[in-house]
Amino acid sequence: MITRFYLEDFEPGAVVETAGHLFTEEEILRFARDFDPQSHHTDPDAARASIYGGIIASGWHTCSVMMRLMCDAYLLESAGMGSPGVEEIRWLLPVRPGDTLRGKRTVLSARVSGSKPDRGIVKMHWEGFNQRDELVVSVRSIAFVKRRPLG
Amino acid sequence: MITRFYLEDFEPGAVVETAGHLFTEEEILRFARDFDPQSHHTDPDAARASIYGGIIASGWHTCSVMMRLMCDAYLLESAGMGSPGVEEIRWLLPVRPGDTLRGKRTVLSARVSGSKPDRGIVKMHWEGFNQRDELVVSVRSIAFVKRRPLG
Repeated sequence: MITRFYLEDFEPGAVVETAGHLFTEEEILRFARDFDPQSHHTDPDAARASIYGGIIASGWHTCSVMMRLMCDAYLLESAGMGSPGVEEIRWLLPVRPGDTLRGKRTVLSARVSGSKPDRGIVKMHWEGFNQRDELVVSVRSIAFVKRRPLG
Repeated sequence: MITRFYLEDFEPGAVVETAGHLFTEEEILRFARDFDPQSHHTDPDAARASIYGGIIASGWHTCSVMMRLMCDAYLLESAGMGSPGVEEIRWLLPVRPGDTLRGKRTVLSARVSGSKPDRGIVKMHWEGFNQRDELVVSVRSIAFVKRRPLG
């Protein structure tokens, strides 16, 4: 993968839209059995009787799929150097089998690091929408991104 | 799974320690190929040449494993009703193949919901330590938990 995007390309306000990802029931159950085996994620009968009325994806699954959508949309072509963390996640609506999630990334701020001048710190807002254009997840993420080499 | 823990059992300051989870290289690569295919997570050669000096787990993988450790330690026996989100994640140190992660949960606050008096909102601090007792991940999580039924 060729690096196309450096710190200078993350201008505040810049938006990237991702492709969509269809959540199947099988995939929701598989993730949840590995990582989040609460019954509203793994047991269709218990989920039906719960406040959710049926299986919903683990919030960590939703975030992991958002990460993948962002990787494919811009991150794999960016000079990323990892992340110190996330400022906030909001799981606003359930993600159910048959839902398609698509992401939108908006750059909030970008600045050169004070201690490591070869890189900068980019703050972004990731929003995930379902096929009815409802906002289902909001993530305020942070990334280290290399500055564009001179010459 | 029998429900043992209700809102009243989440007293501020209460600590639960989890079991440990060994991260294998195969598992790190598998998660990353699905959800976070940046080369420092998926390509041993590229990872060796990166600032990380070798394969490291995706931060979303680390958080998902923390979720599983918390499920097994107390959540599956709690009257949990899902989560509105997370207040902060800090990925403080890399998690590498061969590392064992264990979690510690501390209740920060617990209060009855103003709008839905059958449940409460619990704020917790999850900390993940490696086999050298270094803090590698910190998550400030939020959960909805049912109040103990009367009688």
